[in-house]
Amino acid sequence: MTDLSAPPFSSRHIGPSESEQQRMLEAVGFESVADLVAVAVPESIRAKDRLRLPAAIGEAEAIAELRALAGRNKVLTSMIGLGYYDTVTPAVIRRNLLENPGWYTAYTPYQPEISQGRLEALLNFQTVVSDLTGLPVAGASLLDEGTAAAEAMTLARRAGKSKSNVFVVDADALPQTKAVLATRAEPLGITLVEHSLDGELPECFGVLVQYPGASGRLRDFRDVAAAAHDKGALVVAAADLLALTLIAAPGELGADIAVGSSQRFGVPFGFGGPHAAYMSVRDGLQRQLPGRLVGVSVDADGDPAYRLALQTREQHIRREKATSNICTAQVLLAVIASMYAVYHGPEGLRRIARRVHRQASALAESLKGAGIEVVHGEFFDTVLARVPGRAAEVVAAAAERGINLWQVDADHVSVACDEKTGAAELAAVRAAFGVTGDAIEPEQAPDALPASLLRESDYLTHPVFHQHRSETAMLRYLRKLQDKDIALDRSMIPLGSCTMKLNATTEMEPITWPEFAAIHPFAPESQAEGYRELIGTLESWLAEVTGYDAVSIQPNAGSQGEFAGLLAIRAYHRANGEDRRDVCLIPSSAHGTNAASAVMAGMRVVVVACDKDGNVDLADLDAKIEKHRDALAAIMVTYPSTHGVYEEAITEICAKVHEAGGQVYVDGANLNALVGLAKPGEFGADVSHLNLHKTFCIPHGGGGPGVGPVAVRAHLAPYLPGHPLRGGTPVGPVSAAPYGSAGILPISYAYVRMMGADGLTAATQQAILSANYLARRLAPHYPVLYTGRGGLVAHECIIDLRQITKETGVTVDDVAKRLIDYGFHAPTMSFPVAGTLMIEPTESEDLAELDRFVDAMIAIRGEIAKVASGEYDKTDNPLRNAPHTAESVTADEWTHPYSRSEAAYPVASLRENKYWSPVRRIDQAYGDRNLVCSCPPLEAYED
Amino acid sequence: MTDLSAPPFSSRHIGPSESEQQRMLEAVGFESVADLVAVAVPESIRAKDRLRLPAAIGEAEAIAELRALAGRNKVLTSMIGLGYYDTVTPAVIRRNLLENPGWYTAYTPYQPEISQGRLEALLNFQTVVSDLTGLPVAGASLLDEGTAAAEAMTLARRAGKSKSNVFVVDADALPQTKAVLATRAEPLGITLVEHSLDGELPECFGVLVQYPGASGRLRDFRDVAAAAHDKGALVVAAADLLALTLIAAPGELGADIAVGSSQRFGVPFGFGGPHAAYMSVRDGLQRQLPGRLVGVSVDADGDPAYRLALQTREQHIRREKATSNICTAQVLLAVIASMYAVYHGPEGLRRIARRVHRQASALAESLKGAGIEVVHGEFFDTVLARVPGRAAEVVAAAAERGINLWQVDADHVSVACDEKTGAAELAAVRAAFGVTGDAIEPEQAPDALPASLLRESDYLTHPVFHQHRSETAMLRYLRKLQDKDIALDRSMIPLGSCTMKLNATTEMEPITWPEFAAIHPFAPESQAEGYRELIGTLESWLAEVTGYDAVSIQPNAGSQGEFAGLLAIRAYHRANGEDRRDVCLIPSSAHGTNAASAVMAGMRVVVVACDKDGNVDLADLDAKIEKHRDALAAIMVTYPSTHGVYEEAITEICAKVHEAGGQVYVDGANLNALVGLAKPGEFGADVSHLNLHKTFCIPHGGGGPGVGPVAVRAHLAPYLPGHPLRGGTPVGPVSAAPYGSAGILPISYAYVRMMGADGLTAATQQAILSANYLARRLAPHYPVLYTGRGGLVAHECIIDLRQITKETGVTVDDVAKRLIDYGFHAPTMSFPVAGTLMIEPTESEDLAELDRFVDAMIAIRGEIAKVASGEYDKTDNPLRNAPHTAESVTADEWTHPYSRSEAAYPVASLRENKYWSPVRRIDQAYGDRNLVCSCPPLEAYED
Repeated sequence: MTDLSAPPFSSRHIGPSESEQQRMLEAVGFESVADLVAVAVPESIRAKDRLRLPAAIGEAEAIAELRALAGRNKVLTSMIGLGYYDTVTPAVIRRNLLENPGWYTAYTPYQPEISQGRLEALLNFQTVVSDLTGLPVAGASLLDEGTAAAEAMTLARRAGKSKSNVFVVDADALPQTKAVLATRAEPLGITLVEHSLDGELPECFGVLVQYPGASGRLRDFRDVAAAAHDKGALVVAAADLLALTLIAAPGELGADIAVGSSQRFGVPFGFGGPHAAYMSVRDGLQRQLPGRLVGVSVDADGDPAYRLALQTREQHIRREKATSNICTAQVLLAVIASMYAVYHGPEGLRRIARRVHRQASALAESLKGAGIEVVHGEFFDTVLARVPGRAAEVVAAAAERGINLWQVDADHVSVACDEKTGAAELAAVRAAFGVTGDAIEPEQAPDALPASLLRESDYLTHPVFHQHRSETAMLRYLRKLQDKDIALDRSMIPLGSCTMKLNATTEMEPITWPEFAAIHPFAPESQAEGYRELIGTLESWLAEVTGYDAVSIQPNAGSQGEFAGLLAIRAYHRANGEDRRDVCLIPSSAHGTNAASAVMAGMRVVVVACDKDGNVDLADLDAKIEKHRDALAAIMVTYPSTHGVYEEAITEICAKVHEAGGQVYVDGANLNALVGLAKPGEFGADVSHLNLHKTFCIPHGGGGPGVGPVAVRAHLAPYLPGHPLRGGTPVGPVSAAPYGSAGILPISYAYVRMMGADGLTAATQQAILSANYLARRLAPHYPVLYTGRGGLVAHECIIDLRQITKETGVTVDDVAKRLIDYGFHAPTMSFPVAGTLMIEPTESEDLAELDRFVDAMIAIRGEIAKVASGEYDKTDNPLRNAPHTAESVTADEWTHPYSRSEAAYPVASLRENKYWSPVRRIDQAYGDRNLVCSCPPLEAYED
Repeated sequence: MTDLSAPPFSSRHIGPSESEQQRMLEAVGFESVADLVAVAVPESIRAKDRLRLPAAIGEAEAIAELRALAGRNKVLTSMIGLGYYDTVTPAVIRRNLLENPGWYTAYTPYQPEISQGRLEALLNFQTVVSDLTGLPVAGASLLDEGTAAAEAMTLARRAGKSKSNVFVVDADALPQTKAVLATRAEPLGITLVEHSLDGELPECFGVLVQYPGASGRLRDFRDVAAAAHDKGALVVAAADLLALTLIAAPGELGADIAVGSSQRFGVPFGFGGPHAAYMSVRDGLQRQLPGRLVGVSVDADGDPAYRLALQTREQHIRREKATSNICTAQVLLAVIASMYAVYHGPEGLRRIARRVHRQASALAESLKGAGIEVVHGEFFDTVLARVPGRAAEVVAAAAERGINLWQVDADHVSVACDEKTGAAELAAVRAAFGVTGDAIEPEQAPDALPASLLRESDYLTHPVFHQHRSETAMLRYLRKLQDKDIALDRSMIPLGSCTMKLNATTEMEPITWPEFAAIHPFAPESQAEGYRELIGTLESWLAEVTGYDAVSIQPNAGSQGEFAGLLAIRAYHRANGEDRRDVCLIPSSAHGTNAASAVMAGMRVVVVACDKDGNVDLADLDAKIEKHRDALAAIMVTYPSTHGVYEEAITEICAKVHEAGGQVYVDGANLNALVGLAKPGEFGADVSHLNLHKTFCIPHGGGGPGVGPVAVRAHLAPYLPGHPLRGGTPVGPVSAAPYGSAGILPISYAYVRMMGADGLTAATQQAILSANYLARRLAPHYPVLYTGRGGLVAHECIIDLRQITKETGVTVDDVAKRLIDYGFHAPTMSFPVAGTLMIEPTESEDLAELDRFVDAMIAIRGEIAKVASGEYDKTDNPLRNAPHTAESVTADEWTHPYSRSEAAYPVASLRENKYWSPVRRIDQAYGDRNLVCSCPPLEAYED
């Protein structure tokens, strides 16, 4: 019988063909992948059954299924507000950025030389935030407004002078912000006090002012700020960026910190996310900033170049002493917001804001004209109407007219205007309120901005916000920046710390459909049936894959998943009356985020040693358990380990901790080595977070978005994060939106749906085979640091350059930067072990690409040998001088002792396809010494 | 009153801002654009009224309006067949090619050095066609299968030995092919004879065999071919590419020429187009091929490089002696089809074909099992069922089940299977026929391919069809090719022969919506209401813009619009009993296509001289009119003239021709200089064709698609092209599909809708201002050849290098290729005057880009001066050696007397944004002497 079936999607997702796989198996010395897996993966953890998932479907069928789900969401005009406002994503930005793999498949810009495009875009973002908030240093985005506010709270506690444990929250703050603050405050012993800010402030270390307030009220908070400062407290303003184009900047009113969302700068609702939050701070607080910060430095030629600044603040360096557990940003969304500002410029933004404001004002006049009380006389975009006993009726009447309003309580309705609000929408709203009579033209409506708050300061004066006003110019700017960077659309990104697999187009297409993109997170449940089914189904699939009983997709980053998981453990112990359990054991090899998250969850971190093979030192584990038996809350381990090895002792470790009354947290960062082969929920863990942006194909977006679901066994299920607007649970929300970054969940849904049980398992097997193939081919040239049974690695391998560095002076940096000349992104540098490179090929790279990478590494090893032999100069050699720009290699004077062709074309294939680094090696220290975090003047680029 | 309105789309479409426009006006010496236009555009032709078009709407509103129109199309499963089959566009190809401006905004690859990416893709296309048809030379695509068949007919007449005037058409040919052949045959005096091909053939110069036939019948035509050859006739096979993966190649059966469509290789229906047709020929006929042909040559370093081959065949060289009037291709669609083959490879295509075939076979078995007669026992994908008296009922029953079948007549229904056909579709079809009982599994259905026709020869053996099987590999291949090329997403394409304006994203987005993309051209009218309203509205807008009374959008290229316009003139004269009128006057400055089209329309071309200013020589015109007064059919003039000048005498010219009984054809190629200012239909013309891909924003796609509507005054309206499947007219169809390339009409619709009367007029004004700005800035450095009143040009300007060439040896080629080093596509070279460059900036380029271009031209002038002064060597200088590749500038040995930095970075801005040509200057003659038109073996690339 002829097989007429179309090849499954998995054959497009998995790089190597069957024949290539066979060649790889031969190189590794196995007959089949089953044989390889039997040796590599410990029997003790192996899943017995095939995953119970629906059979795989093809790409066209998956699109059809997602279209059907999308069709069950109802797109109404949203005037709900509460931190989320409709906005027009300029089509040129949607197509050429949001829908362009050159942007969305890029990794976090840790290798700044090949990230200059997105770093420039992020610097633009920081400039927008800094200019609009009137505070000099802005970060490169945070996860959402709620968590940004929580980060500001802890920043205020770290940086302020007050000894108080009280943080005062504006009663008019967004409800989700209050809830996230509460979740964050409790484990840290912070007392939240809600306050109108109208009377006397209590003693506190910080105050958060919502500006404008959730009710629409616009207040001048200068007095509040002065009072807070008098108490030694810091002032946090949660501010609306669009409003700031018309009203005084928070920095001008006395705020020390500003936070907020940049969503309404062109980023769709997505049922709550992802969107880029922002934070900016006054001078003196920059070293306290959580998250990433882009700064300007210089390259080896002294030319300006961008890179991440002040990285020593971060969790991967400072572990439990970090300023925060934040280890990602919302780069793709921040870049969209920045481009929105670039495209509109200050005049355009001001025009949009004026229009939004006047629509709101016209509505308020109409309501007042009809005798309806408008609660606040001063507002930006939101009108709060008092309709005693009629609120539900008005909201229902509006919904019938295709518009969602917000019912505050039985007597109040709020109406938020946005960029899309026009005469038709206002007419429908008036009708819903029962207002008859002619409309008031927005042009003729009075201003409702207080005179004392009118903005007088300039913003967005940098040329970049004035040069790209035509669509053609915008298109070219996007292309120019994109071309500076290496993303997955050019070549393999062989990281060990992230799983850079294919982000298939079919997975990506649905996220920009209006039925997924245009749903407000607080839209009535009946309008989001498709979303809820998609989310419920995806959660159940993730539970099946991981062997857990319940999953929440709310955490919008892996770090938030960790935090949520630890909160569940904490709540569980407390529910059992074991409040004393607060010790979290963390192996020394763990990712620094683990420790930072544990601290956030109110735990004490106790480090467990590792042995020389990188495995948990069982003797030390026993000792630590013994020492902290009564206080033991949990252990956090990564599996396979951060060393890329399947630890044999994992079940034993779990048993020991359980025996002592602790819970086991398995960090799911390396889940790509387990899917279909082993389930943490079955081999001993109680809770894990997953990274949908690693294992489940959400693209990295140049450094975010991520999604970090938390998965738990049944006894922890009651303690998954809740949300005040979707029914509460014992544990509050860890993200501002009920379903986190729901807008990108169709990606993972499509992936699982198209792969099915067999495809997912085959992907894991190929990932293991590919890593072992690389290890086998590289081993003769570079020592492979850790291996498990049979000399095998899991899905990644670490090569050790320490001896090479000692003998030749050639460092991991030199190798990483030299790889750029060969057209590759560098592997992960010096994690988990300094002086090494960690490489994870993933299943998506085909054999030709793997070989091209190995050939590059071998060629580099040859160059190192020339340094060793003295054929190359110790310091003036192609490794140390890497990367080479086109400008440097075409210089009229060539002073190096090696040739230009050795610099540019060390292997022949580069002559056919060459990536040129836009800058030479960047001086990291210079940038930190001379911190510049907004767009530098053009003169900086002159020679 | 504050203006709160959003800036109109026109402010994004038009490059210069108001302040930039002011600066440009100052440079040109005018106060306002109105003043400029008053001087530049002759009063005699100026339109008196504002265009009557609906008010402009914004981008979001336009998308909403188009969504509403799309919603009025009903997407059913199409099993109609007849040359159009449903297909799966791989998502990675749709997003990264069809939806990527890097591909779709590119121009025709006349500048081969900056077109290597799309030229490689086209060479892949040619290889696919050549391999599958078994004929050694394939062209780079034709407009559609019907016109390709017509081109094959005239090729057979040119190249064959027979003196007969008869062309024999398979009675089982596609109905639209027959109709297009008839339209083409009549003016050329060719007698079409429809014939079953079963009995004796008449004397003829050619025979067309449909393979498989329209009825599904698959015949071995070896005998027909032998009989035809005996008569000295050539054999044309119109063949289905997918079928050819299973059945013997036409070349193996004796065909001299193969034609057909590549639509089912991943290109959506689009209600009929655009799709890429193909033609391949046996050895000896390659110099007779119509249209474009990509060939391999070498560059200045001797490396392989692609370019268009044998261009001397074409109409722009040979005018009325050309092999055809074809001057475009369907590059974007051919590239999609080629990538579909690259992605699937030969095994994948074979698997798809087998599956399609077995579905058809399973259906045939089911029908036979139920006692329904299946007319042909041997078929590939189409089953012809005899259901006496029941055909309409079966088709209706299928439609109720969501499937369109084809009712051949009252007694016959045909069902065409395709890549998307599955069990659900077959079940619905069986139910429509009233067949009960279990399905026959395709795997178990018998083959219905004749044993004598089973394909034994290999195809797609080149590595390119085997290397890109994973989505990641495919994505990178697309990116690699795209990066080799210059398109509008990088920089200005300052052509004079085409209007390379913005192709806005909002205009482009709707074309890939299923409701526009997935409609079969012969779907019932009731399922295409949205399309018909869009088409009717667009036709009415185009009539308003041009001042004509009726428009047909059927012609799918400008050349076809010309042909249709001349046919209308011909039919009009005949209807008036003036059959003798067959002389077409054409000024010597005209585009060669005019002459070639006139010949196709059965006219004699008489050339009218131009004076030294490039205007029509009125004395010569009088003389020619007098000489041919009785035979005068028409004059064809371009306005503004091909010299970029508003001829003052245009109304006089029209009057003279009318007075002599002739009709006036105004070529609409330069309509971008008229829209909103003057209307050809009002200032004296009877008919024009427009180029929607010039004036109305359809992107060039790297060399097609185009749309060339024909617009006429009322007396010619009855003679617009008809279509047999949509009701006939006195003149037959000029395109295979009733509405030509309907699938891309939403682009022009959106453009007109978003610009409105004022926006369109402002665009024209800006285009004129920009051309004059360039002329003014360039004039001190290069003589501007032609100007009109006030020393002004229209929307383009010609700079004259002849004196410079004479003095320095630096040619237009040298300047054009040197511009590549500066990051620009070259202007149009040596048209309409040898030794000159024609530059059309369009309204979409902003001042910064215009200045960057002028600065490059001035810098080049400085380089020329150095050649003149002897500072640069006469032959070894940066101009002659341009373009410089990165490889050449980084060579270890630099032997040139100028510096590397002079070669690579002649102006500072290039250091920030540098395009590197992938090859050096290409040797055109070498490629024509050594013709290679399919993928060369990899060894060709070894050093």
